[in-house]
Amino acid sequence: MSHHKIAIVVGSLRKDSINRKIARSIATFAADRLDSRIVEIGDLPLYNQDYDAEAPGPPEYARFRDAIRAVDGVLFCTPEYNRGIPGVLKNAIDVGSRPYGASVWDKKPAAIVSASPGAIGGFGANHQLRQVCVFLNMPMMQQPEAYLGGVTPDKFDADGCLQEGPLRQFVVGFAAAFSEWVELIIRSRKMIAEDAAHSAAK
Amino acid sequence: MSHHKIAIVVGSLRKDSINRKIARSIATFAADRLDSRIVEIGDLPLYNQDYDAEAPGPPEYARFRDAIRAVDGVLFCTPEYNRGIPGVLKNAIDVGSRPYGASVWDKKPAAIVSASPGAIGGFGANHQLRQVCVFLNMPMMQQPEAYLGGVTPDKFDADGCLQEGPLRQFVVGFAAAFSEWVELIIRSRKMIAEDAAHSAAK
Amino acid sequence: MSHHKIAIVVGSLRKDSINRKIARSIATFAADRLDSRIVEIGDLPLYNQDYDAEAPGPPEYARFRDAIRAVDGVLFCTPEYNRGIPGVLKNAIDVGSRPYGASVWDKKPAAIVSASPGAIGGFGANHQLRQVCVFLNMPMMQQPEAYLGGVTPDKFDADGCLQEGPLRQFVVGFAAAFSEWVELIIRSRKMIAEDAAHSAAK
Amino acid sequence: MSHHKIAIVVGSLRKDSINRKIARSIATFAADRLDSRIVEIGDLPLYNQDYDAEAPGPPEYARFRDAIRAVDGVLFCTPEYNRGIPGVLKNAIDVGSRPYGASVWDKKPAAIVSASPGAIGGFGANHQLRQVCVFLNMPMMQQPEAYLGGVTPDKFDADGCLQEGPLRQFVVGFAAAFSEWVELIIRSRKMIAEDAAHSAAK
Repeated sequence: MSHHKIAIVVGSLRKDSINRKIARSIATFAADRLDSRIVEIGDLPLYNQDYDAEAPGPPEYARFRDAIRAVDGVLFCTPEYNRGIPGVLKNAIDVGSRPYGASVWDKKPAAIVSASPGAIGGFGANHQLRQVCVFLNMPMMQQPEAYLGGVTPDKFDADGCLQEGPLRQFVVGFAAAFSEWVELIIRSRKMIAEDAAHSAAK
Repeated sequence: MSHHKIAIVVGSLRKDSINRKIARSIATFAADRLDSRIVEIGDLPLYNQDYDAEAPGPPEYARFRDAIRAVDGVLFCTPEYNRGIPGVLKNAIDVGSRPYGASVWDKKPAAIVSASPGAIGGFGANHQLRQVCVFLNMPMMQQPEAYLGGVTPDKFDADGCLQEGPLRQFVVGFAAAFSEWVELIIRSRKMIAEDAAHSAAK
Repeated sequence: MSHHKIAIVVGSLRKDSINRKIARSIATFAADRLDSRIVEIGDLPLYNQDYDAEAPGPPEYARFRDAIRAVDGVLFCTPEYNRGIPGVLKNAIDVGSRPYGASVWDKKPAAIVSASPGAIGGFGANHQLRQVCVFLNMPMMQQPEAYLGGVTPDKFDADGCLQEGPLRQFVVGFAAAFSEWVELIIRSRKMIAEDAAHSAAK
Repeated sequence: MSHHKIAIVVGSLRKDSINRKIARSIATFAADRLDSRIVEIGDLPLYNQDYDAEAPGPPEYARFRDAIRAVDGVLFCTPEYNRGIPGVLKNAIDVGSRPYGASVWDKKPAAIVSASPGAIGGFGANHQLRQVCVFLNMPMMQQPEAYLGGVTPDKFDADGCLQEGPLRQFVVGFAAAFSEWVELIIRSRKMIAEDAAHSAAK
């Protein structure tokens, strides 16, 4: 397995975000196969299509788009706000998808974790985000689904990493499945491209 | 019928937004029954839950929340971004829903228009927004659904109002249905409250 | 308050369905304001549009459509099957919605309960059903949302009614809210119709 | 490329179903790479979980499950009924997913076409089905999305195949993309399994 580069996008800006802690935990658990880092979204101006006509647009947009363009896959870790995707996360997605025809999300394998202290574990945000990723053409890991409910601060140690227990076990498994998904998509795409080149050369 | 106050929230910031023009057209068509005005969302900082602990938080938040609190009903006019609610609109909704327990959306009758130049008319954004409004406890007009497809600039006159034609006719009907829906919810709620007061007084 | 007639449609056919028990519990809790009965769906042939051209189509269709046509409102109590509406329930809805222009669901106020033994409480089925009810033009109660998780057989007594406890308390509140919602929609619609008749008579 | 076996499941029972015609057209267009056949669903009794306790349950269930179990991938061609998945299609999916732990859908690569005479092209059914396929663990082709609007009978020739024109061109491209998606998922999974066997043998 190669060591793929992953951008983690966290759907909450608050300092003690549990989704940020989940993100860091996954980065740690998959560190032997994935090179993951959180790409920040809190400084992105609200997307306005009029920016697309300007070159180059807000510098924060360029910074964000470059960071996503540079990776092999994307992991979203997000809370649910009002049964939907947090506006702050959707804004980042909108920024990355534009200008028209230059989306930085295209073809990147992805997975979604939604975590919350409540029982439902962000199901609504998770699936609204899946709908968005269809349009973005991001091959999406289906299983395991990760609606993480009951994620309270005591689930983490002082360093913000998941404590031993069923939640940690599940997240370790999720991290392994995600790295396999990224490997599957990227490697087979390469193989198919090589086949095509081979056929053309005959 | 009383003359209810309506906030229109437009899901696009661009200057020539067709959804803004649709919004203005509806405000005009319903002017004899509804007192509608667009409440702006382009200056709202990205929502961060840490603001909730601060008093009073960003002044733009207070301005927006006050504006929504003051109305009897809400109309959303929005494009679809990447098969979902534009981040900029969802951010405004998130801002209005907080701090916890102080949502300004609660109980306000609402309707949704999604307009786009394409064929599908923002179906994805429309229904993701409906899901959000369940949590926000906004009684939602069901019919007519307004997935306005093929909404190109030539559908509007120089003042930005809808030209004669089937689209205008549909939107006129939509505006009438919306004003009836607002009237129905507000008046019956008042009536039920009066009944309750009457019963209690006996 | 008048005593409105309610059809309860249960999304599971199995004998010991917990959603059927929840349905019966709600019927009992609201018995002073609503006259509720379960309308069966297990005998309905799979919907085929070719039936619409035949008169009168399958007799089970006529029986079901008559039963729904006769009520003032509808309560759906359903499990989630594979993150969606059970096929058996959707089939009944499709049957009731046809032939084109003769839907029996039109304008009937409605509410949805989704119950499951798992944590997520049928969120996916609940919201897919809400999307369907937009098209069916059924004014939908927004709050309280009822994603009933952890609904195991021991939550019910020998007669299949909810035992004392937080779940029962929640469902009692839900039943009260639903009867208010039905009353609100039906009474105000009547009032508005009377106003219109009054205006026309002048 | 190997010649993968594909089950096409059509979400409408009516004789002149346009989705059945689209299904046949795709089977024809991809015939050099995929061996596709329609698996019928019109005879499946409504799913009842009580059947799972019986061995072997309705013979139609066994027939359907065997047919899906035998294929490498699945294509859904479906209309939208009331903004959702037709009950008849969802019933087939529910049947195939059970008994618990023996789903026949598991891991099969899939794609969705939704066709309708209207403008919106079954967007609602398409995405509700995508949500279901997450749980079913079916790797789903993201692009091209196929919300086929304006699909009227005159789009087909006397044999029920798509006439020359933009719709046919789109569907030809869709068929090619689907066969690549199936190849990608199946071949890479095999490769990863071989790697694992190789590592284990060392």
